[in-house]
Amino acid sequence: MFKVNDNYLKLPGSYLFSTIGKKVRAYQEANPDKEIIRLGIGDVTQPLAPAIIDRLHEAVSEMGVQETFKGYAPDLGYEFLRSAIVKNDYNARGVDIAIDEVFVSDGAKCDSGNIQEIFSLDNKIAVCDPVYPVYVDSNVMAGRTGTYDATTGLWSDVIYMPCKEENGFAPELPEETPDIIYLCFPNNPTGATITKDQLQKWVDYANEKHAVIIYDAAYEAYISEPDVPHTIYECDGAKTCAIELRSFSKNAGFTGTRLGFTVIPKELKSADGVALNPLWARRHGTKYNGAPYIVQAAGEAVYSEAGKKQTGEQIAYYMKNAKYIFDGLKSAGYSVSGGVNAPYIWLKTPDGMSSWEFFDYLLEKANVVGTPGSGFGPSGEGYFRLTAFGTYENTVKAIDRLKAL
Amino acid sequence: MFKVNDNYLKLPGSYLFSTIGKKVRAYQEANPDKEIIRLGIGDVTQPLAPAIIDRLHEAVSEMGVQETFKGYAPDLGYEFLRSAIVKNDYNARGVDIAIDEVFVSDGAKCDSGNIQEIFSLDNKIAVCDPVYPVYVDSNVMAGRTGTYDATTGLWSDVIYMPCKEENGFAPELPEETPDIIYLCFPNNPTGATITKDQLQKWVDYANEKHAVIIYDAAYEAYISEPDVPHTIYECDGAKTCAIELRSFSKNAGFTGTRLGFTVIPKELKSADGVALNPLWARRHGTKYNGAPYIVQAAGEAVYSEAGKKQTGEQIAYYMKNAKYIFDGLKSAGYSVSGGVNAPYIWLKTPDGMSSWEFFDYLLEKANVVGTPGSGFGPSGEGYFRLTAFGTYENTVKAIDRLKAL
Repeated sequence: MFKVNDNYLKLPGSYLFSTIGKKVRAYQEANPDKEIIRLGIGDVTQPLAPAIIDRLHEAVSEMGVQETFKGYAPDLGYEFLRSAIVKNDYNARGVDIAIDEVFVSDGAKCDSGNIQEIFSLDNKIAVCDPVYPVYVDSNVMAGRTGTYDATTGLWSDVIYMPCKEENGFAPELPEETPDIIYLCFPNNPTGATITKDQLQKWVDYANEKHAVIIYDAAYEAYISEPDVPHTIYECDGAKTCAIELRSFSKNAGFTGTRLGFTVIPKELKSADGVALNPLWARRHGTKYNGAPYIVQAAGEAVYSEAGKKQTGEQIAYYMKNAKYIFDGLKSAGYSVSGGVNAPYIWLKTPDGMSSWEFFDYLLEKANVVGTPGSGFGPSGEGYFRLTAFGTYENTVKAIDRLKAL
Repeated sequence: MFKVNDNYLKLPGSYLFSTIGKKVRAYQEANPDKEIIRLGIGDVTQPLAPAIIDRLHEAVSEMGVQETFKGYAPDLGYEFLRSAIVKNDYNARGVDIAIDEVFVSDGAKCDSGNIQEIFSLDNKIAVCDPVYPVYVDSNVMAGRTGTYDATTGLWSDVIYMPCKEENGFAPELPEETPDIIYLCFPNNPTGATITKDQLQKWVDYANEKHAVIIYDAAYEAYISEPDVPHTIYECDGAKTCAIELRSFSKNAGFTGTRLGFTVIPKELKSADGVALNPLWARRHGTKYNGAPYIVQAAGEAVYSEAGKKQTGEQIAYYMKNAKYIFDGLKSAGYSVSGGVNAPYIWLKTPDGMSSWEFFDYLLEKANVVGTPGSGFGPSGEGYFRLTAFGTYENTVKAIDRLKAL
């Protein structure tokens, strides 16, 4: 008689973006004449850059010819892509990462959901609050989070690090010592960042406590200020305490193309000396079969001269949106943050509205979709996220509608 | 102080195909002049069919234009693909499966590794012996298998169902009642199949015991005999006890393109009434982000008239290889099975050699790579797997070398 994984049943409601999707569909069905502008989910809208498209066509043609056809990919990803990653994302920043410390995957969402598997169930996690829901939910599903308090919206066995206006949306070192610390900078959802000096404190703390930092750097390409680290390995000692997650979704528009990678340095070991790199390699070898060859080839093209130039232009395009949103909301009297090193703008809801009240208000009055801050955790209540990933025209239209309210 | 998932450390040695890869590389390096023929890993060699390549090019072009660019895919997969699956793989065989019972993924290996997550850790699994290693290893990693006995090669908390010459490589109903039963037909590694009447007995047994069958039908396209079921849902009552895993790897050459799907009927519920379909949907929504749009478009092309014809020809090509291997080994005095409804030929090693002894013997004397039966479980000891996925020329050459030994 089979039994289900009861931990799944503890999850309150459905995944945030599924809920938003349902609400928007319902509104659109009831109001088919309204033109809804979506600045909610962090999905890109610019097409893949020409250099990427060209390489994709080439790779597709290779797959149609016996001599160049590719079957199963190497366990950790094609060397051509891992070399390009090492060279451009690490060596170019003075960081020494080896090719076999890079694990290519089909995206940072999968990696951030799966990475907890290589840790013991009795490890305690610490997360920022608000936070990208996948970090917490994947730990709930594994049974690492205790019980849920529907009143507070908190799990009994999770250490929350509130990120609010008062602390500049930067987490403080927790009072209770965690085993696994999730950090995401530039941050989703708040758009906040921390400096290299601030991150160094986290690295020192993790090394002192023998905790592991899972560092999500999916928005690294949006950094515009000089003292913000692009990789956690810019900090001294990070290789003995940090795993880094990266994505091609936001820097190159791969949300529908699917590519990411995880870095696990060989020096990263538990207190009793078990290295994490071979554990993750074993997971890759046993439960995963690689990203498609054509997609890995496209990933390599992101690092070509033309690829870098073209994707850089796309980022500039989105950051122009970010500035329009930020400035527009500011001028309309909103309290706003983010948007400078990240494609997310984080605003305080007006008149004490709850996040979901403001969601409904914006959907109904301005036909603009954003993301309720409370969907990212209790400390997100009273906040709201807008993304810069729309088209410029729609972004301008949406903000102008907001200002007119 | 973080701790690792100790279950990973229980895994004996590395993943079978990694070990084979290492042995072959070492031999090739020591003997650079030898021409090695690989009939080991089940990887295809024929290029993607023209209808698939054409659709891939089209989809790539769509990704380069704003109006047709695709970001995040729908949680469960694009409806165009799920419709094609329902229509061709199920409705055409008189089976009624709904679109929201189909979950598109990046392949059956991931799905067969991940599916155990939605079940309780105290469920007991039953597997065929020999078996595709992922079923067991993914349960080891989750902590469901007890302790490993290095002498017998068996896990204390796994129910093994030996498949040997004596029972025609078909498992018998186990004495101890399992909660989760893994079945794969046509079988990897033995190439054996069971009839619809035989499978019906398993379905009846599972319903009686309230066990769940995880039915891996990745090799369905190779079925040539009329009384062999193409889907478990051809059996009465299968919807209340069976999950089906399917793949595009072997029927359309997608090993390096990555696409598969899982079917979970809505009727499938635990004894206390928890439906599995929404649990798997939740896993998809939380820990996965969909197969690439271009790959899903390619998957749809597999079901086009041209796609069906062309992939059918590829299967016929591989099955011609299978026949050559089967007949050749038979004429050389080997005891052989499989190869009629599956691309795998299963042979008894000669002269009481162990599986790995025969692997080394074949690699060194004939420069042919196969897969040791013992790598699939203790009852595979003394057996050896050859695949029909090589080119015809190489297959002929390999078998002629074997016959000349």
